[in-house]
Amino acid sequence: MATFKLTISYDGTHFVGWQRQAEGVSIQGLLEEALVPFEGGPVAVHGAGRTDAGVHALGQVASVALTSRHSAHELLRGLNACLPKDVRVVRVEAAAPEFHARFAARSKMYRYWLETAPIASPFHHRYAWHVAQPLDLDAMAAGAAALIGTHDFAAFRSTGSETMDAVRTITRSEIIGDPAGTAVGVDGTALLAYEISGNGFLRHMVRAIVGTLVEIGRGARSVSSIASLLAGGNRGDAGATAPPHGLFLVRVDYD
Amino acid sequence: MATFKLTISYDGTHFVGWQRQAEGVSIQGLLEEALVPFEGGPVAVHGAGRTDAGVHALGQVASVALTSRHSAHELLRGLNACLPKDVRVVRVEAAAPEFHARFAARSKMYRYWLETAPIASPFHHRYAWHVAQPLDLDAMAAGAAALIGTHDFAAFRSTGSETMDAVRTITRSEIIGDPAGTAVGVDGTALLAYEISGNGFLRHMVRAIVGTLVEIGRGARSVSSIASLLAGGNRGDAGATAPPHGLFLVRVDYD
Repeated sequence: MATFKLTISYDGTHFVGWQRQAEGVSIQGLLEEALVPFEGGPVAVHGAGRTDAGVHALGQVASVALTSRHSAHELLRGLNACLPKDVRVVRVEAAAPEFHARFAARSKMYRYWLETAPIASPFHHRYAWHVAQPLDLDAMAAGAAALIGTHDFAAFRSTGSETMDAVRTITRSEIIGDPAGTAVGVDGTALLAYEISGNGFLRHMVRAIVGTLVEIGRGARSVSSIASLLAGGNRGDAGATAPPHGLFLVRVDYD
Repeated sequence: MATFKLTISYDGTHFVGWQRQAEGVSIQGLLEEALVPFEGGPVAVHGAGRTDAGVHALGQVASVALTSRHSAHELLRGLNACLPKDVRVVRVEAAAPEFHARFAARSKMYRYWLETAPIASPFHHRYAWHVAQPLDLDAMAAGAAALIGTHDFAAFRSTGSETMDAVRTITRSEIIGDPAGTAVGVDGTALLAYEISGNGFLRHMVRAIVGTLVEIGRGARSVSSIASLLAGGNRGDAGATAPPHGLFLVRVDYD
């Protein structure tokens, strides 16, 4: 067996998410099917994180163990030759035999794009949440900073989550108001970014955080409410879950 | 009658182009249909230029004369409320009664995006032509500059064009190798841009120019071949027509 680490970028618009579902096309399913001709039989691909339907990735990481003898370069070329253009394997590397993309992940970084122009760009509606009103970026930045540290994020977890422990450590949480050099779209429109890094994320956690920060930006919620939420709030106390299409899994880090 | 000038931005991916066709959805058709409830009857919308299927626009301009009494602001809101998200009216202005978007246009600017990374970004495949090899940008810039001026562009016109006169004046023709501040995508990937402005463009002219410049960039054609093409070349002497999806009609200027 040879284990490989795949780094994958995808436009999540037309997929049911990372994970295989009973119906619809998933990224995991596409990769597993694309690997069948290499392996001559079924292959299990393990992703670092389960992105939801509509969520995008720039650097999702997956692990796969193959019995067949193929070089990393052959896999890279072969996979991209049969995957749809919305999904690209950007890197294939040989990994230690025991490497597992999910269990070995040390931290992840997500980015969420917001568009605040009065009229939404036709080029961003799949990649940014259009909030057609001015946002108080200073208040949002203060709210974002209050999330940094080790906290119980139960108030930002979707109801029905199976995980027990909601304690996570956030190392970075930042509003990037001037995206020059970060990203402006093919139409030149500036977007607002929120970036968050941490050792783990609960289901819908980033989207619940973004929904809460936007309420702060609108003046509908105080910055200090973040501290209350972290001190033991319920999901209903936090903001609405932001739509999936603004969210990008940017990077997964390993030791 | 009140005449309005509309400025329209659209992602051309899913349309048959600007102009109404026997089959498929056109931008012109969408606008005309969206105006029917305002006018209570059929409406003719005249565009400044006929973008092809798959070609995008940031600032297409159209004129429309309405008998009904609606403010520019009502039209802006009402049109965007019923148009698909791929098409946005970004501005509506009252115009002189005789204003016609096509006949009054003094110059147009187009931008064409190229992606030269080895693996195409999943976020750019609708907006940039992926040329997976290094391009000689200095040679392309020299070729681009050679197009500036008043020339006979017959060699860059699609066969079967009905227009007789192929003489056009190009005021700007430039390769933008460092797109910092111009555009990098939602995934942070840098793109290469070609920008061209002129008083008029023949059918497929920008795409034939881009195809020719890319052949120069690949070293498959000399910079001096541009001068030969302008001195009386045939369409077959120039490069292949670049695909539509990298092309954006950026702006139309009026007196």
